[in-house]
Amino acid sequence: MSMNLDVASVDLNYERFRQLRMRLDMSRGKPSPEQLDLSQGLFDAALDEGYRARDGFDCRNYGLASGLPEARELGAELLEVPAAQVIAGGNSSLELMHDALAFALLHGVPVGEAKGQGEGRSAPWRAQGAIAFLCPSPGYDRHFAICEALGVRMIAVPMREDGPDMDAVEALVREDASVKGMWCMPLYSNPTGAIYADEVVRRLAAMPAAAPDFRLFWDDAYRFHHLTDERHATPDVIEACAAAGHAERVLMFASLSKVTFAGGALAWLAASPRNVAWWQRCAAVRTIGPDKLNQLRHVRFVRDRAALEALMARHRALLAPKFAAVDEVFRARLAHVPQVRWNVPRGGYFTSLYAPPGCARRTVELAGEAGLVLTPAGAAFPYGVDSEDSHLRIAPSFPALEEVRLAAEGIAVSLLRALEERGMSVR
Amino acid sequence: MSMNLDVASVDLNYERFRQLRMRLDMSRGKPSPEQLDLSQGLFDAALDEGYRARDGFDCRNYGLASGLPEARELGAELLEVPAAQVIAGGNSSLELMHDALAFALLHGVPVGEAKGQGEGRSAPWRAQGAIAFLCPSPGYDRHFAICEALGVRMIAVPMREDGPDMDAVEALVREDASVKGMWCMPLYSNPTGAIYADEVVRRLAAMPAAAPDFRLFWDDAYRFHHLTDERHATPDVIEACAAAGHAERVLMFASLSKVTFAGGALAWLAASPRNVAWWQRCAAVRTIGPDKLNQLRHVRFVRDRAALEALMARHRALLAPKFAAVDEVFRARLAHVPQVRWNVPRGGYFTSLYAPPGCARRTVELAGEAGLVLTPAGAAFPYGVDSEDSHLRIAPSFPALEEVRLAAEGIAVSLLRALEERGMSVR
Repeated sequence: MSMNLDVASVDLNYERFRQLRMRLDMSRGKPSPEQLDLSQGLFDAALDEGYRARDGFDCRNYGLASGLPEARELGAELLEVPAAQVIAGGNSSLELMHDALAFALLHGVPVGEAKGQGEGRSAPWRAQGAIAFLCPSPGYDRHFAICEALGVRMIAVPMREDGPDMDAVEALVREDASVKGMWCMPLYSNPTGAIYADEVVRRLAAMPAAAPDFRLFWDDAYRFHHLTDERHATPDVIEACAAAGHAERVLMFASLSKVTFAGGALAWLAASPRNVAWWQRCAAVRTIGPDKLNQLRHVRFVRDRAALEALMARHRALLAPKFAAVDEVFRARLAHVPQVRWNVPRGGYFTSLYAPPGCARRTVELAGEAGLVLTPAGAAFPYGVDSEDSHLRIAPSFPALEEVRLAAEGIAVSLLRALEERGMSVR
Repeated sequence: MSMNLDVASVDLNYERFRQLRMRLDMSRGKPSPEQLDLSQGLFDAALDEGYRARDGFDCRNYGLASGLPEARELGAELLEVPAAQVIAGGNSSLELMHDALAFALLHGVPVGEAKGQGEGRSAPWRAQGAIAFLCPSPGYDRHFAICEALGVRMIAVPMREDGPDMDAVEALVREDASVKGMWCMPLYSNPTGAIYADEVVRRLAAMPAAAPDFRLFWDDAYRFHHLTDERHATPDVIEACAAAGHAERVLMFASLSKVTFAGGALAWLAASPRNVAWWQRCAAVRTIGPDKLNQLRHVRFVRDRAALEALMARHRALLAPKFAAVDEVFRARLAHVPQVRWNVPRGGYFTSLYAPPGCARRTVELAGEAGLVLTPAGAAFPYGVDSEDSHLRIAPSFPALEEVRLAAEGIAVSLLRALEERGMSVR
C-alpha cells in the first residue's frame, strides 16, 4: 500500500478515504505473514530427526489411515479425549466436516445401542427425505455453504453472547425429526466471539431429539486462540453427551491451521468410539492414509500443550493490537451513532459490527468502491440472507496493524456515508 | 528376517518353507525404502528457496482451492492436458476418485451441451435408483471397495491383455442406462499389467451410452512406471472422448505417490473444462485449499517430464530385478504345471499368477500359515469373489530382492501343496 497514513486522522471522511485508493482484502480470517513466521521451525528442523515415527514406521510410505499414532495423541492431549477416539487427518478440518456430512448422507450414522455384531446404523440421511440443520446465526459462512451444496435445509436460530438461543433449539430438535444436526462453534464463535455457557453445553448434550441420529457438528476452531489473559474454555461436550445418555451425539473438529500454517497443518476429528469406528469404515475406502510426514513435522514442532500455549501467546501478541485498533477506531467514530454496536472479542478471528438495519450491504459496497474488500454482507447467515441487513464481519488478522487501523477508519466512514444516504442520524 | 537364504534352493518344499518362519507382508503394492530414498531431495533442499510460489503467493496460507498454479502446470505437462483442465489436490488420487463418485451421487454430473447460464447437470446419481459400474476384472480392489461402500452395483467384465472385453462393455453400456461408469487403468493395469490398445481407447471414447451421464474413471496410476526399455503409452483419452463428441465422458486421475513418497505426494484430476468447473464447484465448499507447501516441494523436486523420467529410471532399476526374480522362480518351479500361468509385467507394480481353478484361496492360506501374507484371493474381483478361485496378485515391490526371491519360492511351494491336497497333477 502506498497511501499516506497521516490521513488516517479524525479528519477522514468517505471521499478522502476513497481517494486513498486502498487495495486491501479483509474478507477472510487469514493469519498474517508474521504469524506464519512463528512456525518457521516446521521447515528448519522438524524432519532433521528423520522420517521415522516413534515406533520406526516409515512416514514416507502408505498406511495409517487414521493418522500417525503420535499425531492422534497430540490431538488427544489438546482436545482432552482418549487417543483412540481421535482421528488425525489432512490439512483441513473443513474437509472433515464436509465429509462427515457427506458420509451421513450416503451411509447413515450410528444410532442406539450397539446390538451384537450389528452396526446399529441409521438409514442414509439422503434416503430420509428432506433434512435440516440448525444454524446459529450469525455463524460461519463455510458451514452454511456445505449445507447449501449438499441440499440440507438450514434453519437459523438466534446466536447470543453465551451461545445459541436454547429455548428455540430445544423446541426445534424435540419436535422436528427432519432436524438431523446443528453447527456449533463453542468458543470465540465465528463471527460474534460468543462463548457457549456451561449450561448451554449441558442442554445441548441432554436435550431430547426427535431424530435418533441427531448430531452436533462441534467446530472447536478457536479452542486455543485467546486474545486476553483469561484462557476461556467450554465444558467437555463428548463427556457431557455420554453422561446424558447421548454418547453418539457429537462430532468434534479441530485443527492446527491457525496455530502453524493455515494451508499446511493437520486436522482432527474426535468423537465416541462408535462414531470413530463409523468414520474409519467410511474413510477406509477413500484413503490409504493422510500425509504422515506433515503430521510428524507437527508433532515435533508443536510437541505438547505447554509448547502450543507458548506459541499461541505469540500469536496473541500479534493479533490483539489489531483487534484493539478496530475497537479504538470504532469507539472514536461510531460510539455515539444510534443502533450501531460491535463486540470486543475475547478470542478468535473476528469482530462483528452491527449497522442500523438496512445499511450493512451498502456499507460493504461503499468500502469496496474505495478498494477495501469486506466479507459480503449477509455471509454469516444461512443462504447469505441477513433479514435485518445489519451485520458486518470484520477480519483484522491478515493486514499489518497500520492497515487495520486505516481499514477500520474506512469501514466507519463507509458506514456513516451509508447512513447519510438513507437520511439517518449519525450522532 | 533371519532365515538362512541358502535354503531358497531347488530343494525347498512347503514344510521347509514353513520352518523358515518368514514374516513378510506382500499383500500391497508398496514402494521399498530404497525407492523412497530416491526422493530424499524433497526433504533436503526443496524449500530452501522459500515458501513463496512463482508469483509471490505465500504457500503457507489459505487459498488456491484448485492447487498451486505451477503444480497444475506440472500435472499438465505430465498428463498432456492444458493446465486449466488440471486440479492439483492432496496426497491421494484415491481420494479424488472417491470424491468424484460421491459428488456424482450427491450432485449429479454435467451432461449434454452447456445451455446458456444453466449448468446442464444430471440428477444426483443417488436419486436415479440403483446404479452400476463396469469393473474389468481382475482389477484394483480399492476401486471396487469404493463402489461397494457407496452402494454402486458392480458388473464384472473380462480383462484381456489389451484391455477390457470391448464387445461386452459396448453391449452393457449401450443397453443399460443404470450403468453410470466404468473403472479403467489404461497402462500396466493393476494387477494384470494389461495395456489398453489404441482401438480399445477409441471404442471406449466413441461407444454409445444409454446413460447420458456415463463416466470413465480413468486411473492412470502407472503412466510413468515402466519396467522395460519401451515406454508404453496409451492414447490421449480426453482428446479421444472430445473427438467422439463425448467431451464430458472421462475423469482422469494420476499422482506422484509411486514417484516420490507414497504417503506424501500429490494427486491430480484432469478432465474437460466443464467437468473441471463441476469439480471446482463441488470441492469449493469442502476445502480452502490443498497443502501447497507440499505441492511446491514437488514442483521444485520433480521439475519436469525429463527429470521425472530420470527418476523413474532409478525406480525401474530397483523394481525390475524383483519382477525378474519372481518370473525366474516361477519358471523354475511352475512352468510345467498344467493350468498355471503368470504374466511378466512391462510396467506397474504387480504380477498376476493364475492357479488351477479352486486353488488360489488355499494357496494364500498355506502361504499365510508359513508367515507370508499375500493379497487375499479374490481381492481383484468385485465383491472379492473370483468365481474360478484362480487369481493371485503378487506385489514384489516392497521387500528386498532376496526376500522377494524367497517369497516367490514360498508362493510356488504353497501352490504346489494346494494342488497336492486336491490330488492334482503337479507335472
